[in-house]
Amino acid sequence: MVERRKPIKVTEALQRLMEYKKYGGIQHTPIEDSYGRFLGQDLVADHDVPFFDRSPYDGFAIRAIDTNGASRENPITFEVIGEIGAGSVFTDNVGTRQAVRIMTGAQIPEYCDAVVMLELANEELVDGKPMFHLTRSVIPGENISFQGEDTKQGTILAPKGTYINPGIVALLATFGYKQVPTSSKPKVGIIATGSELLEVDEALEPGKIRNSNAYMVYAQLQRAGAEAIYLGQFSDDFDTCYKQVLDSLSKVDFLITTGGVSVGDYDYLPEIYQKLGAKVLFNKIAMRPGSVTTVAALNGQLLFGLSGNPSACYVGFELFTRPIIRTFLHAYHPCLKKEVAILGSDFSKANPFDRFVRGHLSYDNGRLVAIPVGLDKSNVVSSLGLADILIQLPGGTRGYERGMEVTVILLEDQEGATIDSFIKNNINARKELRHEY
Amino acid sequence: MVERRKPIKVTEALQRLMEYKKYGGIQHTPIEDSYGRFLGQDLVADHDVPFFDRSPYDGFAIRAIDTNGASRENPITFEVIGEIGAGSVFTDNVGTRQAVRIMTGAQIPEYCDAVVMLELANEELVDGKPMFHLTRSVIPGENISFQGEDTKQGTILAPKGTYINPGIVALLATFGYKQVPTSSKPKVGIIATGSELLEVDEALEPGKIRNSNAYMVYAQLQRAGAEAIYLGQFSDDFDTCYKQVLDSLSKVDFLITTGGVSVGDYDYLPEIYQKLGAKVLFNKIAMRPGSVTTVAALNGQLLFGLSGNPSACYVGFELFTRPIIRTFLHAYHPCLKKEVAILGSDFSKANPFDRFVRGHLSYDNGRLVAIPVGLDKSNVVSSLGLADILIQLPGGTRGYERGMEVTVILLEDQEGATIDSFIKNNINARKELRHEY
Repeated sequence: MVERRKPIKVTEALQRLMEYKKYGGIQHTPIEDSYGRFLGQDLVADHDVPFFDRSPYDGFAIRAIDTNGASRENPITFEVIGEIGAGSVFTDNVGTRQAVRIMTGAQIPEYCDAVVMLELANEELVDGKPMFHLTRSVIPGENISFQGEDTKQGTILAPKGTYINPGIVALLATFGYKQVPTSSKPKVGIIATGSELLEVDEALEPGKIRNSNAYMVYAQLQRAGAEAIYLGQFSDDFDTCYKQVLDSLSKVDFLITTGGVSVGDYDYLPEIYQKLGAKVLFNKIAMRPGSVTTVAALNGQLLFGLSGNPSACYVGFELFTRPIIRTFLHAYHPCLKKEVAILGSDFSKANPFDRFVRGHLSYDNGRLVAIPVGLDKSNVVSSLGLADILIQLPGGTRGYERGMEVTVILLEDQEGATIDSFIKNNINARKELRHEY
Repeated sequence: MVERRKPIKVTEALQRLMEYKKYGGIQHTPIEDSYGRFLGQDLVADHDVPFFDRSPYDGFAIRAIDTNGASRENPITFEVIGEIGAGSVFTDNVGTRQAVRIMTGAQIPEYCDAVVMLELANEELVDGKPMFHLTRSVIPGENISFQGEDTKQGTILAPKGTYINPGIVALLATFGYKQVPTSSKPKVGIIATGSELLEVDEALEPGKIRNSNAYMVYAQLQRAGAEAIYLGQFSDDFDTCYKQVLDSLSKVDFLITTGGVSVGDYDYLPEIYQKLGAKVLFNKIAMRPGSVTTVAALNGQLLFGLSGNPSACYVGFELFTRPIIRTFLHAYHPCLKKEVAILGSDFSKANPFDRFVRGHLSYDNGRLVAIPVGLDKSNVVSSLGLADILIQLPGGTRGYERGMEVTVILLEDQEGATIDSFIKNNINARKELRHEY
């Protein structure tokens, strides 16, 4: 079945798609396994920080009133009556001109209201007793970190949807999250289509290639934060294919097919969508590669039809599937981040439609530099592994030269961008040569 | 035991440490689990790409010789005698002015030597038979992707030590790596020390704080690519501590202790190193934070003594532990990448020693911008999660202002840097205000 397809803009496709976004649930994950996931709830301080008045330095806890009048000419002598390490508490009385040796982080004794830093105390043993002399006065509260001065109990320290990096893990531990409320990962099924496909462990044979898209998408899903489920390859028979899709939909939150969306003779997907009663949101986008990227919705569930061409499949996933996955994870920045970069080599092709070129990000004296990868046949295969950006060249342009400014989409960045900023944040015309590089 | 400590430069510490680097083994990992690991062997093409002469377009496979003399005035008519989809092979004879309909990616029939693109063939049914007319000649080899033109069998497509991203996974699948030779992860033990520490699930009590460093380091280890093993907290008794360290060393490739390396009264580590017979490589570095970062070696095994202060612990890990882990993983860029950035806010403190400030990376029109995090008490806690760079300010400087150039260390970057480039790639003086920001 060959059908008429009406191309729409990338931004419109994204907007249509996002109307079908859905949010996943929450599960509790041991703190040791929380790195790389997303917070399913706000991270809240369960106590003041500091939890008690504490000493920021090694020194001596004293009563400030006892230092009145201290000077170089009139040093005041304190008797050291005890010591407290971090973690212990000093509850005895501290009287006039008495002091307690205190370690960094330890709680200020009840009867003290200031700390003298170790360096300012001239220590001496007098009759075998530890003493020190002080040559300046201190004020009440000096060198004390007060309870709650860093953070008050109940403060939201990181909102729901935050990517959990090592710093967030430190916060989770500090505030007692032995079990972390994380966003449940969406289950995303992958079905590979294409009669030319062999499985990875099959020997090559004439006319065939190994199925690489399914595994590439599998890794893209992992990078995006989803649980990938490889459901195998389509059969050649329509009814079996239909049943495969129908069965799969009951097992997953989203379904991806790779291949079979080109305008070819052997493409069952349009018919399958029709028989399922799925609404095709779009099946042609004014972009290269990936123009045949198709998305359909059935009972609120999304079916992504990604191209069988590896570059098109890769780009279609990052532009359209990733924001849906990150939204499911409650990420407040579901899209990839866009920035401006200098083009690191010429790209002379015409761009009749928006083009997304896989590229490698480097830097030149603090400026982002984008180098297209895989344009030469001689390195098209090995360069696949170098891609960490997409270079976005707007439709209706041509003749990009080294040194021009281009929009780049950062594939490895975890911070991301909102849908709105992703849509707006483009260089929409060819920017003239501006930068030496 | 309070001991004399002689500070050395960061670069010297790194060099001393790297003399004790070791490389881990290889294990086979299912391709589905390979994302985010490191290649333990070179990734080699097990076949030519393409594996056979194939068509890059939808069109008709023909014998070029039959097109001689074709022109607008003298169109030549071909009879379509069959069709081949991707994955199937056409083995019948193709005679004079005969053609085979061919799909993108399909193998060129044995008797054909060129492809006419679909758009250039004027198709027509003549007496119910499919025919097309051609108005230009083609040359032998036209529109054929020849066997091996992208990649020859035996080519190394990614060297041992490459970080496995989705593009690398696509290559692994293409070349039949159902089981991927990945670098074995080093087992790294973590012991937390400090009498003030509570476990994450313990209720707070006066004078105590929860152990957050161990879990932070746990996540840093995961980010670096290691297998983290939390071995618990030290006891207060020297002999028990000594036994804990001795036992732990037999279970791990590297051992990290957090806390207990400050010049305090309750610090067992120097004595433990001594009793073990471990050689202390350094125990004082001219840097802030993390000046007390200690590394000792015993029978070629490294013991990292990281500070109990969270910032110092974090920085000590990224500067010293990470390169050792990445080297174990055979990564050819074991250190973090350094770049130049514009300082996004003033940093007025003096830097008597090299200072590493946790910061957040942003961008301004294609330029890297580094904003220190956690300098204000009001946000010191929540800002922990924002850190994705370290801002390196050289010792002997002061009064950094917004807009100045600084060296930044990229914490989330997977590409990394060599030891040499990490050591050399610094701005060594305060760069005057140069950038509007």
